Amino acid sequence: MPLPPSVTVHAPATIANVGCGFDVLGLCLTAPYDTVHLRRTDRPGLSIRHLDDYDLPTDPNRNVAGAALLALLREVPEPLGFEVEITKGIRPGSGIGSSAASAAGAVVAANALLGNRFSHKELIGMAMYGEAVASGVQHADNIAPAICGGLTLVRAVLPVLDVVALPPPPLWVAVVHPQFEVRTQEARAVLPTTVPLALAVRQWANVGGLVAGFLTHDYELISRALEDYIVEPARASLLPGLGAARQRALEAGALGGGISGSGPSIFMLNKDEATALAAAAAMGSVYEKMGIEYHLHVGPIAAQGARVVAME
Amino acid sequence: MPLPPSVTVHAPATIANVGCGFDVLGLCLTAPYDTVHLRRTDRPGLSIRHLDDYDLPTDPNRNVAGAALLALLREVPEPLGFEVEITKGIRPGSGIGSSAASAAGAVVAANALLGNRFSHKELIGMAMYGEAVASGVQHADNIAPAICGGLTLVRAVLPVLDVVALPPPPLWVAVVHPQFEVRTQEARAVLPTTVPLALAVRQWANVGGLVAGFLTHDYELISRALEDYIVEPARASLLPGLGAARQRALEAGALGGGISGSGPSIFMLNKDEATALAAAAAMGSVYEKMGIEYHLHVGPIAAQGARVVAME
Repeated sequence: MPLPPSVTVHAPATIANVGCGFDVLGLCLTAPYDTVHLRRTDRPGLSIRHLDDYDLPTDPNRNVAGAALLALLREVPEPLGFEVEITKGIRPGSGIGSSAASAAGAVVAANALLGNRFSHKELIGMAMYGEAVASGVQHADNIAPAICGGLTLVRAVLPVLDVVALPPPPLWVAVVHPQFEVRTQEARAVLPTTVPLALAVRQWANVGGLVAGFLTHDYELISRALEDYIVEPARASLLPGLGAARQRALEAGALGGGISGSGPSIFMLNKDEATALAAAAAMGSVYEKMGIEYHLHVGPIAAQGARVVAME
Repeated sequence: MPLPPSVTVHAPATIANVGCGFDVLGLCLTAPYDTVHLRRTDRPGLSIRHLDDYDLPTDPNRNVAGAALLALLREVPEPLGFEVEITKGIRPGSGIGSSAASAAGAVVAANALLGNRFSHKELIGMAMYGEAVASGVQHADNIAPAICGGLTLVRAVLPVLDVVALPPPPLWVAVVHPQFEVRTQEARAVLPTTVPLALAVRQWANVGGLVAGFLTHDYELISRALEDYIVEPARASLLPGLGAARQRALEAGALGGGISGSGPSIFMLNKDEATALAAAAAMGSVYEKMGIEYHLHVGPIAAQGARVVAME
């Protein structure tokens, strides 16, 4: 059976860091998502069109999906190109993996048009070129959950990419996205270059505890272990409302949470949908009072990452 | 039924740190073990006798079991004392939790004579006073597995002790104890006080990976994640033969390992008994060639920690 010429993929938002797991942990949401449509062409090269209003670059080398697809095409021997149409459902700069979604969606779509010849790990490696366009750093903490779904641990990027897909616990995520911008590069610049060993020990104790809590469905442990001693204190000043939003969400029953990626979105994990809705509303009310517009997202941890929704 | 007047407890050796999990992870061995015999007396206070040749202090305030029992007695309203007899099966200074075993064994024995009124967590808190006598630091990474058995994660010591007992994987441990001394205080002194954030991230990625590997029985992941980027490089110079012993053990099929506690013992985790025996022999041959005497210990991760073996 010949492969169909075009495919549509939904590529979901993701939460990187997940509290204490800076640069390492990530989880996949069900929504919002980018829609990536790819049409295979025999003419080598890429043409990229954005069907949204974000005015993102369409030069393949400066577009996150383009850079990811160029990396993929380098691994394909036959002459091949793609016409790419992207509809951003995830606002750029929101801190919930907008660039990762487009990059992941693009390579997952291309892979579908190529008979799924590449593994998740290979696709992650390619999509990381997209992240480098967006932030200057080839990191995988959003890419991995955007491709694998669920909960992921990027154990190593170099010398060999090592991504561990963890069975996701049945948790619900509440996200508030206050409408101000935190640039990833600025959020990186405020980080300390060194940390006290004693604090690093407390942080890796929490990472170990959080992973254990996720795998054993110990919600009390998850709640205790989510705390980030290193990155969040450094970034808190970039994120007005963070402390109050967390406090209100905890009062509404959330297990805990923190900055999503480098912000400005804030996520909270919750044991069920009702609590997640209450936590989201509670966080929204904080920004309401501050006169800052915001969006809310509530959903379970998604078992699946970027996925084909149509092939024509 | 009245409680019996005396009890004998076997208190096993333990491996603290477990590769990347400095100050956090620990696991329990089946052997060697200290034997702690307690007789209840109505006369308040402690008398301590050592039935071994290590010439350890018997003043309760300077003896690890004594300090732990004094902490326990502070929580007991009735007038009460203990006659304590300890036979060290674990050499002091071996790096496999010798002091923790005596402290843990003492409080587990006392608890048995008191109708098991204290929880594991309370006993860990008391036994930590014993560790403070031995090393000047109230740490729990040996105490926790010595009391809980299996695999433990000390998520926090302050403000509230938080010990997570993880279901232990079916792994076999090989330990070589070369007969030279590394003082815990010296091993602490060589540690850096600050670490690069990038290195701390790699370390907590490994801690998360190791915990995930233990809980999902993913032996390849355990093998990749055991690596310690921070503490072992700082201590390696105190431990001649470490690199060669690891190399030989890996060649014999071990999954990985490193310094046990602050050394000089070296541990390796293995997927079965035969491999553990081969790894132990391979490590032993390294010290044989160096002309350094050594002891070997091989056994599974013990499901149970310090345990009552007789009540009279």
